[in-house]
Amino acid sequence: MSASVTIALDAMGGDHAPGVVLKGADIALTRYPAARFLLFGDEARVAPLLAKLPRLAKAATLHHTDEVVADDAKPSVALRAARRSSMRLAIEAVADGRADGVVSAGNTGALMAIAKFVLKTMPGIDRPAIATFFPTRRGESVMLDLGANIECDADNLVQFALMGDVFARTALGLIQPTVGLLNVGSEDLKGNDAVRGASAQLRGGMTPIRFHGFIEGDDIAAGTVDVIVTDGFTGNVALKTAEGIAKLFSESLRASFRHSPLARLGYVFARGALKKLAARLDPRRYNGAMFLGLGGITVKSHGSTDAFGFANAISVAIDLKVNGFLEKIRDELAQLNKLPPPQQSAAL
Amino acid sequence: MSASVTIALDAMGGDHAPGVVLKGADIALTRYPAARFLLFGDEARVAPLLAKLPRLAKAATLHHTDEVVADDAKPSVALRAARRSSMRLAIEAVADGRADGVVSAGNTGALMAIAKFVLKTMPGIDRPAIATFFPTRRGESVMLDLGANIECDADNLVQFALMGDVFARTALGLIQPTVGLLNVGSEDLKGNDAVRGASAQLRGGMTPIRFHGFIEGDDIAAGTVDVIVTDGFTGNVALKTAEGIAKLFSESLRASFRHSPLARLGYVFARGALKKLAARLDPRRYNGAMFLGLGGITVKSHGSTDAFGFANAISVAIDLKVNGFLEKIRDELAQLNKLPPPQQSAAL
Repeated sequence: MSASVTIALDAMGGDHAPGVVLKGADIALTRYPAARFLLFGDEARVAPLLAKLPRLAKAATLHHTDEVVADDAKPSVALRAARRSSMRLAIEAVADGRADGVVSAGNTGALMAIAKFVLKTMPGIDRPAIATFFPTRRGESVMLDLGANIECDADNLVQFALMGDVFARTALGLIQPTVGLLNVGSEDLKGNDAVRGASAQLRGGMTPIRFHGFIEGDDIAAGTVDVIVTDGFTGNVALKTAEGIAKLFSESLRASFRHSPLARLGYVFARGALKKLAARLDPRRYNGAMFLGLGGITVKSHGSTDAFGFANAISVAIDLKVNGFLEKIRDELAQLNKLPPPQQSAAL
Repeated sequence: MSASVTIALDAMGGDHAPGVVLKGADIALTRYPAARFLLFGDEARVAPLLAKLPRLAKAATLHHTDEVVADDAKPSVALRAARRSSMRLAIEAVADGRADGVVSAGNTGALMAIAKFVLKTMPGIDRPAIATFFPTRRGESVMLDLGANIECDADNLVQFALMGDVFARTALGLIQPTVGLLNVGSEDLKGNDAVRGASAQLRGGMTPIRFHGFIEGDDIAAGTVDVIVTDGFTGNVALKTAEGIAKLFSESLRASFRHSPLARLGYVFARGALKKLAARLDPRRYNGAMFLGLGGITVKSHGSTDAFGFANAISVAIDLKVNGFLEKIRDELAQLNKLPPPQQSAAL
């Protein structure tokens, strides 16, 4: 990794800030010893914690502010007020080139609104989207949008496909990821106008994307495709549904092992294998939702994550910078614009 | 149970028809010894199987037809052609009063199209919906729509809430089920016009429903509400996503227990408790999606289910008949129509 990667951190965002933010940055340093951090937050609370983390203290610069975006603040209010909030200052550090990316565990809506305003949307992208990756039967996949855009048209979905494709290549290191559109069936006539229109565009070969076609909900966990494209309403519901089922399953399993002395004994023997499974499916491993389509790298951590999870969100931001995510997506959009515009079919 | 419950069966619908249909009916007879069946299908294939099931043979009447709705037939084609298909004849038996309900494991779209045409939509309901129940942390919940209506407005969602409420009372025996609207957040401003409009109507107290408000994807498995209302696109994706995660989880768990001799030994000890868990989450237990809003009881079985699963789909149809589902939903709609129409607020 180049020595020059600097990440701006909203030290006050999230349920357990600033402690988790600082400890997370310290863990990230063990993975990326050359990383540098700009910390934005309340000096009175951050400085004492930083003093206890000497390795991080050497790699970080603290910028004091006592303004914070509240967890329940409306995005529009957070954007207009709190011009010196820890979140806003961290984003501005990316805009003016002092940092290569920003990570916050604060209010999602506010982060998107401020990042859109400060970093701007990339030329060629109408609307940014939120993406994350998660474990599947085959490995890992990417899904977007997860809630930034409640209603989407065909063009939005095609742009999400393009951004998801570059994200999978950059963050997961895939050479040519497969992309699928989430729908209620695999046949051409299924779904609404947006998914049918996007499918027609993606099938038309106007993009460099390896388009698989429509997929259904059970294809998410099966890992049928590397990138799952959907509108923000459906994507948000699907991701949270999956999280809920995973939680129900692990709770029920734990209860089963407590069911009887014999079952408890069984757990003792199977513990090693079960812990490997738990580690693979650990939601903290998949912490770090990327805001795609903005002029700078912006990663949202779960508000309730711990230091290990926050370190993973930082890793996502660093990986995207190191692997040239922004440059790759700009190249892909530029190439797309060089293609001849779609022709009307002669038969029409 | 009254001796008079008669269920019409599409003996040729589903991946393993007619074998699974007949064996399923035979299993259902052990639960409901007084049930009677009308079987519609190819005599040359059905009669030899029936001869091997003497108990079912006494309780069933076979009606020969050699027409079948293909699994990949378009609903509109299935409706216009195949006037003597096993599916259509089974539905007609409900329409003319010879049967109290119909169960088919055949083509879902065709079943909905033919059932709508033959049985008609109930007065007061604009569009029928597909509902199912499934296991949650608290017990069982109902979700609708699962794919009959890709786009829904606020009125559709309110009607789904009403039908789901009666379904939960009839099929799950709940006294006053709680109803939630699936959304991307719990705040009033979240979501699209349809969910916000439906929420306003349901909060307005114009219905007898115990409305919980908005819920999110993770509330499905948590069992936060008894009835989850959503459009057919989101509901279909959410249900299939949940099925996919459950499958990934159980496969990974099985692989973990095969991981090492020690883990295998652990399984031997914990087997009893794990089998109880597997039984509770067994998807066959939740087989049988109900088409709500039609003038007759119509239940769709999974196409790939086994005899145990098909027997459960038959049980759903019998329970709905025995518990007076159609009468209860008609009463509720009639009461709703007696209420004064919504008043314009004086402030507007």
